[in-house]
Amino acid sequence: MPLPDDLSHSLQALLGTRFSVTQADRGHHAQSESFHSAPPPDAVVWPRTTEEVARIVAACADAGVPLVAWGAGTSLEGHALAYRGGVTLDLSQMDRVIEIRAPDMQVTVQPGVTREALNTELRATGLFFPVDPGANASLGGMASTRASGTTAVRYGTMRDNVLALQVVMADGRVIRTGTRAAKSSAGYDLTGLFVGAEGTLGIITELTLKLHGQPEEVASAVCAFETLDHAVECVSATIQSGIPMARIEFVDAATARAFNLHSGASLPEMPHLMVEFHGSPGSVREDATRFGEIAEDFGATGFDWATTPEDRARLWRMRHGAYHACLALRSGAKGVVTDVCVPMSELPAAVHAAAEDIAAAGLLGPIVGHVGDGNFHSLLLVDPDDKAEIAAAKEVARKMAERALSVGGTITGEHGIGVGKRDLMAAQHGDGWQVMGAIKQALDPQDILNPGKMLPDRN
Amino acid sequence: MPLPDDLSHSLQALLGTRFSVTQADRGHHAQSESFHSAPPPDAVVWPRTTEEVARIVAACADAGVPLVAWGAGTSLEGHALAYRGGVTLDLSQMDRVIEIRAPDMQVTVQPGVTREALNTELRATGLFFPVDPGANASLGGMASTRASGTTAVRYGTMRDNVLALQVVMADGRVIRTGTRAAKSSAGYDLTGLFVGAEGTLGIITELTLKLHGQPEEVASAVCAFETLDHAVECVSATIQSGIPMARIEFVDAATARAFNLHSGASLPEMPHLMVEFHGSPGSVREDATRFGEIAEDFGATGFDWATTPEDRARLWRMRHGAYHACLALRSGAKGVVTDVCVPMSELPAAVHAAAEDIAAAGLLGPIVGHVGDGNFHSLLLVDPDDKAEIAAAKEVARKMAERALSVGGTITGEHGIGVGKRDLMAAQHGDGWQVMGAIKQALDPQDILNPGKMLPDRN
Ligand SMILES: Cc1cc2nc3c(=O)[nH]c(=O)nc-3n(C[C@H](O)[C@H](O)[C@H](O)COP(=O)(O)OP(=O)(O)OC[C@H]3O[C@@H](n4cnc5c(N)ncnc54)[C@H](O)[C@@H]3O)c2cc1C
Ligand SMILES: Cc1cc2nc3c(=O)[nH]c(=O)nc-3n(C[C@H](O)[C@H](O)[C@H](O)COP(=O)(O)OP(=O)(O)OC[C@H]3O[C@@H](n4cnc5c(N)ncnc54)[C@H](O)[C@@H]3O)c2cc1C
Repeated sequence: MPLPDDLSHSLQALLGTRFSVTQADRGHHAQSESFHSAPPPDAVVWPRTTEEVARIVAACADAGVPLVAWGAGTSLEGHALAYRGGVTLDLSQMDRVIEIRAPDMQVTVQPGVTREALNTELRATGLFFPVDPGANASLGGMASTRASGTTAVRYGTMRDNVLALQVVMADGRVIRTGTRAAKSSAGYDLTGLFVGAEGTLGIITELTLKLHGQPEEVASAVCAFETLDHAVECVSATIQSGIPMARIEFVDAATARAFNLHSGASLPEMPHLMVEFHGSPGSVREDATRFGEIAEDFGATGFDWATTPEDRARLWRMRHGAYHACLALRSGAKGVVTDVCVPMSELPAAVHAAAEDIAAAGLLGPIVGHVGDGNFHSLLLVDPDDKAEIAAAKEVARKMAERALSVGGTITGEHGIGVGKRDLMAAQHGDGWQVMGAIKQALDPQDILNPGKMLPDRN
Repeated sequence: MPLPDDLSHSLQALLGTRFSVTQADRGHHAQSESFHSAPPPDAVVWPRTTEEVARIVAACADAGVPLVAWGAGTSLEGHALAYRGGVTLDLSQMDRVIEIRAPDMQVTVQPGVTREALNTELRATGLFFPVDPGANASLGGMASTRASGTTAVRYGTMRDNVLALQVVMADGRVIRTGTRAAKSSAGYDLTGLFVGAEGTLGIITELTLKLHGQPEEVASAVCAFETLDHAVECVSATIQSGIPMARIEFVDAATARAFNLHSGASLPEMPHLMVEFHGSPGSVREDATRFGEIAEDFGATGFDWATTPEDRARLWRMRHGAYHACLALRSGAKGVVTDVCVPMSELPAAVHAAAEDIAAAGLLGPIVGHVGDGNFHSLLLVDPDDKAEIAAAKEVARKMAERALSVGGTITGEHGIGVGKRDLMAAQHGDGWQVMGAIKQALDPQDILNPGKMLPDRN
């Protein structure tokens, strides 16, 4: 459905070639890294300033046309797809690092800056931004999905690392939330409300983030376990012992196989943990030794330490490539990627049960996880044209989510809701879901910001 | 104004003697630790269960009668006073620790459990709850003001330590927010919305909190500085050096004098820092040595180490008693207590300017602060019957807040808004304040939950 003429004209007048209705540009924004797909949006815009975003949003609001923000498009639950048409607001050209304030360990960025670009820019300052979803996501997208990743066990998630935002509201008003102070009790936590809102409450046009000191010393290792249970129980024991792990990642035997086939590794085809320690030379040595002792209790073997920066980079590049390495286990496959998070004491049983369900369904579904948070994923490989297989994979994902709920966990630790997990929201939140709907209704009465995602249907 | 008869009858039928309209009970709930005062509420109720809270709220909603939650009544900006009459909901009898889950380092409590009661209950588990506002506040009140205190520099504020809530909404519906998992991306962060909402969005009837391991080793010390600037610049340097301080508190010369006069101390009447280190014996020694070196650079003298648990308890009891010791500097005085928070690099100038303003106004106003967060307070001592003096003190507080805003900080780091800082909300939040108002309107359309506080006037 084409846009109303008035709207097209005003967007074109405002943005010139940064407004597009070509098949190619629209098609690019109809793709997803996961199995989700949708028709293309009616148009794509690439704003460069907050002022432009405000004018685009106001114009769409006037016309009652939906707006879907797009950061890097790496989200996994169909978040950034335009199921109801309208305009995709691609923020990739809002990619300026606005200000680094090293003494306060803070940075202010535009939303299209990617995690990797930011850390490249920070390299010389002795600081870094830790949240690391593997994919080279945009910081606006990461905030909007409340992303985390391998280092959240030590440095927290986006919830913990966003200090302040600039946001364009559904009517085009521009607000600022939060401050540059370390804490505040001045009213509702609007920053926290927009973090994780998946573009349904406003468009983030600026973020002020906490930075951390680059660790003086870093050590990383990989080690193997006889069984999945041994590996995951080792994680629970490690976290409960209080060792301040910088990363502690689980990959199962299928993922080890994928690394061997597609990432040039030569690991035993067994479950592994990949760990990292940050600190002073003394504390890293102490932490690594304590972890080694615990791991030994659970029968860990084949400890391989990455001592040079290059070795470490290779190790984590491999971990971050797990999704694509696993996809390559089956040619033409797409992923039904699912993520749950449970209390630490429930983790071993939850991972065990997921593995059993996947096997029982006859699916190929490697399991990996940021297990230090109680968070794990399954990458269920499906033929995108086989509806029955997709349904079977979704059924496994549903069981994982319901089991997580039954032990006090959440249906998603970091990927978010999008369209993929919307039908599980009532089970997790009960009437709280309606409360979310009431907030959405109050702040976006026309339902133009990323409609059809996350929230209950309007009455 | 008495309650409508119907409402009185139904509350009495529900609660028996836990419903009161006596002068004494109402008068007790018209008092505040600060200079704020208000007429007493029309009635006080002491529920014991969530079910009772839900029925009370529903009954008040039917009658359109305001409801003000009361935890321990220690808030400092008139938060818990019933300026518009109605029912005070005293939660002190909801004081059960519901479940300690040691392996997950979590506890679930009713909202009337106090910080001290919780830590007493936890003592044998090896765990503790770190947020420490000095006053023996209730956990429901602490969550509602987004409290922090001396240890927030290390362990975070209530924002960081509340995992999940049970909340009674303005219409009596009961919802649960959050989960027992370490993180979640499942929809809006409702937990974060109720934390800091000061009882304006719902009544918290249950909290699940993060616990921390009791540190293996603890060391505390106090040291003196020639000038306020030396002490505060030492703090900035310490934080920027990355030493993981467990506490770093500033008290000025006037406060040292108050400690000498009223807390049995014998300190030089100079500015001081009070510090604490938590960790392994090795790390505590390393951290303390590094801090000692930095402090020496700023001319610190008279280092006094508290080595026994008793000495440490005495030290922090003294610090926590600062408010009452300072009040005693002037007989009959009440406090206009104000709190701001600024980025670390702005802290020295902000404290310096506040001290100058206080002196210029001819007021006695000791300054103390949780300076590791960039957070500091002034306790402006006023004659509660002297309107001009109160106005002068409020003017100093306003200047501190405006200066905090001008350097990227917040009008309150931890005490909150209540009635005292409502007139500064527009300056901090601009249109964001209206967004808060829209959320309040959506979730409490009748404006019965703590009306007249924090939010903009209804149109
Ligand atoms: C291989 C792979 C590995 C991954 N690993 C992880 C992981 O470890 N941890 C993790 O958390 N995620 C992971 N993800 C998921 C994904 O990277 C995250 O969800 C990421 O946060 C998405 O960022 P993005 O910039 O790609 O956002 P997009 O996909 O472009 O958008 C995500 C959502 O945010 C909204 N949005 C985007 N920008 C804005 C803005 N400026 N204002 C308002 N709304 C906005 C969109 O409308 C959409 O709803 C992985 C994905 C892949 C493909
Ligand atoms: C000597 C002294 C020192 C202090 N030091 C600090 C400090 O270092 N750091 C700090 O943060 N604060 C400090 N305070 C302020 C005070 O202790 C905190 O604001 C504390 O969080 C208030 O808790 P309370 O239980 O007394 O809450 P109350 O005063 O009873 O209530 C506070 C607010 O929360 C609401 N409320 C209470 N319970 C609930 C509930 N269950 N559900 C919904 N709303 C509720 C009330 O309606 C009110 O708006 C200090 C106060 C004093 C007197």
